[in-house]
Amino acid sequence: MKFLDTTLRDGEQTPGVSLVPENKLRIAQRLDELGVDFIEAGFAAVSEGELESVRLIAKQGLRAQIYSAARGTINDIDAVLKSGASGICMIIPTSDLHIECKLRKTREQVLKATEECVQYAKAHGLTVELLAEDATRSDFNYLSKVFQTAVNAGADRLVPCDTVGILTPERTAEFFSKLKEAFDVPIGVHCHNDFGMAVANSVAALGAGAQEAHATVNGLGERAGNAAIEEIVITLRSLYKLDLNIKTELLYGTSQLVSRLTGIHVQPNKAVVGENAFTHESGIHTQGLLSNPLTYEPITPELVGRTRRLSPGKHSGSHAIRQDLQNMGLMPTEEQFKEIFQRIKELGDKGKTVMDADVLAIAENVMGLSPIRPIQLQEMTFVGGDKVTATASVKLRLNGKDVWGAAVGVGPVDAAINAVKAAIAEVEPITLEQYNVKAITGGTDAMVEVVVRMRKGNRTVTAMGVREDIVKASMEAVLSGMNVLTTDYNHKNQKAKPQTSP
Amino acid sequence: MKFLDTTLRDGEQTPGVSLVPENKLRIAQRLDELGVDFIEAGFAAVSEGELESVRLIAKQGLRAQIYSAARGTINDIDAVLKSGASGICMIIPTSDLHIECKLRKTREQVLKATEECVQYAKAHGLTVELLAEDATRSDFNYLSKVFQTAVNAGADRLVPCDTVGILTPERTAEFFSKLKEAFDVPIGVHCHNDFGMAVANSVAALGAGAQEAHATVNGLGERAGNAAIEEIVITLRSLYKLDLNIKTELLYGTSQLVSRLTGIHVQPNKAVVGENAFTHESGIHTQGLLSNPLTYEPITPELVGRTRRLSPGKHSGSHAIRQDLQNMGLMPTEEQFKEIFQRIKELGDKGKTVMDADVLAIAENVMGLSPIRPIQLQEMTFVGGDKVTATASVKLRLNGKDVWGAAVGVGPVDAAINAVKAAIAEVEPITLEQYNVKAITGGTDAMVEVVVRMRKGNRTVTAMGVREDIVKASMEAVLSGMNVLTTDYNHKNQKAKPQTSP
Repeated sequence: MKFLDTTLRDGEQTPGVSLVPENKLRIAQRLDELGVDFIEAGFAAVSEGELESVRLIAKQGLRAQIYSAARGTINDIDAVLKSGASGICMIIPTSDLHIECKLRKTREQVLKATEECVQYAKAHGLTVELLAEDATRSDFNYLSKVFQTAVNAGADRLVPCDTVGILTPERTAEFFSKLKEAFDVPIGVHCHNDFGMAVANSVAALGAGAQEAHATVNGLGERAGNAAIEEIVITLRSLYKLDLNIKTELLYGTSQLVSRLTGIHVQPNKAVVGENAFTHESGIHTQGLLSNPLTYEPITPELVGRTRRLSPGKHSGSHAIRQDLQNMGLMPTEEQFKEIFQRIKELGDKGKTVMDADVLAIAENVMGLSPIRPIQLQEMTFVGGDKVTATASVKLRLNGKDVWGAAVGVGPVDAAINAVKAAIAEVEPITLEQYNVKAITGGTDAMVEVVVRMRKGNRTVTAMGVREDIVKASMEAVLSGMNVLTTDYNHKNQKAKPQTSP
Repeated sequence: MKFLDTTLRDGEQTPGVSLVPENKLRIAQRLDELGVDFIEAGFAAVSEGELESVRLIAKQGLRAQIYSAARGTINDIDAVLKSGASGICMIIPTSDLHIECKLRKTREQVLKATEECVQYAKAHGLTVELLAEDATRSDFNYLSKVFQTAVNAGADRLVPCDTVGILTPERTAEFFSKLKEAFDVPIGVHCHNDFGMAVANSVAALGAGAQEAHATVNGLGERAGNAAIEEIVITLRSLYKLDLNIKTELLYGTSQLVSRLTGIHVQPNKAVVGENAFTHESGIHTQGLLSNPLTYEPITPELVGRTRRLSPGKHSGSHAIRQDLQNMGLMPTEEQFKEIFQRIKELGDKGKTVMDADVLAIAENVMGLSPIRPIQLQEMTFVGGDKVTATASVKLRLNGKDVWGAAVGVGPVDAAINAVKAAIAEVEPITLEQYNVKAITGGTDAMVEVVVRMRKGNRTVTAMGVREDIVKASMEAVLSGMNVLTTDYNHKNQKAKPQTSP
């Protein structure tokens, strides 16, 4: 079973996505590490930049074989040859709709072009994968004729494309079984996700004898995108117990890299790589999880390079909150705990997202503790402009001592957070894992909501800052997260009250 | 075939989501309009606010029947009764993993609780849907026993839940066929999306005899979420040609409402409701689309309440572009206009959102005009902090003269834009009508996309700025919009070239 990743071709055709050659290369290197067999690196004939990208990737000597897409024209194939790719994904429309409305050709002309182009590509040493465009809406007899023509001309693999995603798993199985019977060369599957079934269809095709799956990271691609490689891989591995050559633990990092470089965000509720895929809030769930993660996790987060996260909220059960408090060294009495629990739910009922920092504040209040905030902002100043490098300085009170930090950044927010990092770098090894700002609507004085996820060792917390000033909101969120991570009442309580109550 | 929408229960369990009663009501009303049969409005026993939400929705007299979730305890059922819901989704774990690790009970105890709770709920007039939690990892014989017990006690419908999303379409078909044979009461399906197959599995279950599907708007829900209602509905309608009572044209609006109220964004490449689901980029695709949309669209965007987007500028058609040019005093020849229109299309093909500022730049280029930019930024500086009032100054070149402005604001962005307003106030009566920033995800150095709508007299324009620094991006957007609004070639052309070419 082989994988052809087309993030850099079909994925890059996502509206609004345009990758410069260096970034395409970074993604290709990551895909190579991940273990895919083939990388479709681009569409060489599209532009000079695109040709350059394929060439750059082809000459790296990666383990994965490098392919370029091309239409069925000599011109397009020549571009592939120039790029140095070892293989070609030759796109030949086979439905009457595409042949007539788009190509304005006849079936016969397409057959002839197929023969000529495959022969030409083979004669020049390319491995040829024939992609029948809109194959699933094509007359099956005609599709077979195109495939047979291609095979006779030397094509190495056949890939019927479900161009507008209209297959269902049962039709997929039937369709691929028929093809498998008719042809001896390996068959691949290429699914689109217009009805949300690209992954199920890809898996069904593999079950029916297809030997190669086309897919993209994060399911990128035109419209609703292509089948997501991370979902196919994990389904095959965990639900079908197949041994694959994919390093699954690199899936999350790969997803993050692609999301960052393409600017296409992954929704929180996306399978495998979405922010919430291993996050749990509701009480029923966390209670089960703490006793056995399998209760609410079909796979371990580590399998895909991630960690589990329990999120407090109005659906939280007592187990998760207790765990949270324990992490901060807080041991409320049973009565205090009930009160804390109640207040957290009330906060949720008000429509507020409950952050770890809120749990801490509520607990301290209920338990009558004077808040320990190891890190306090004393002073923050930033300056920037179009002729001034954004620069910020902070003065923090850190465990009772004053520390200073100054830094530059791409803008005032970045500079200010860098200044905090500089100030505490030596004392607290805390990393800012994620920085998100909710869409701002209205005016330049609208409220800005910043949510951060921070890590210290193997513990992560979330925190939020809400202000009209994005720099202050960001500072609030980051310091709030840092304070939760560095609060430890174990230590403090022992000093203050050597004898704790029974 | 019926739909139970659980956006307000399973969907609201999405980490970080918490809806106040009024917002729950708004979503319920929209779901009712959409045409779902049952609305699971919440989990009454969770908190006072949650009970209040269910009560508020139940008393509206909606067409859809209102349900509340509950665990198998008398206490939970009493909360449902208090809420005024007409039905209950009674969650009973049936896998040994859940019974032992989570409930810490025995199989026998669960059977007994099932009997008692169903009887109690029925005796109090509730319609009872029995949700067998983790049913797909349960011993089938035991699951059947629980179901039989529930039916004997009066349960109205049985719903085996694929709690961690481990079904595949073929296993789903087999599983539901067996249940269908064994029980006469209607069976429902409840799928989770951990492997990306929730929709395919739901559809497979309906194909095997299930009569009701549980789903959520945008596929919200714990972890990777539940099956997305919009995807199931469109699959059934378009791929299986089924007549449903769902007003599909309300799907997109419903998705947008839920996204806005929950704060959980929909990824652009999400099927049916994603921003790109009907957006087209590549040349091959648009070429086909312009001749026949079916070439690259399996369904019409209108079916789900949307419009096709080749790009906003392109989709607005020649009429709107002509109007836009006229407003700027630009009168291209017919040939020039075609070229301008073409280039705007090309820009759209590249996936770029076309702003009025882009239209101006293209027109100037085609018509060989040297760009007039009445307002140019010469210098901008801002300073701020927690002890410093955010302050900014700008130096602008306005119609060839230097002007200065300085202002304070709630943050650096507000201060900078106020400074621009101050600088041009007397000369140009322009107002900033809307200021939006796309959600920022990733890090403090992520790209920030600012879109503004500005008005001068009765004319409005849109403009965009994209930078890593939110202040610079905002400045770019605002100045770009101001320049479009103040560009008037009528005036300029008359002075420069009194006699225009024929």
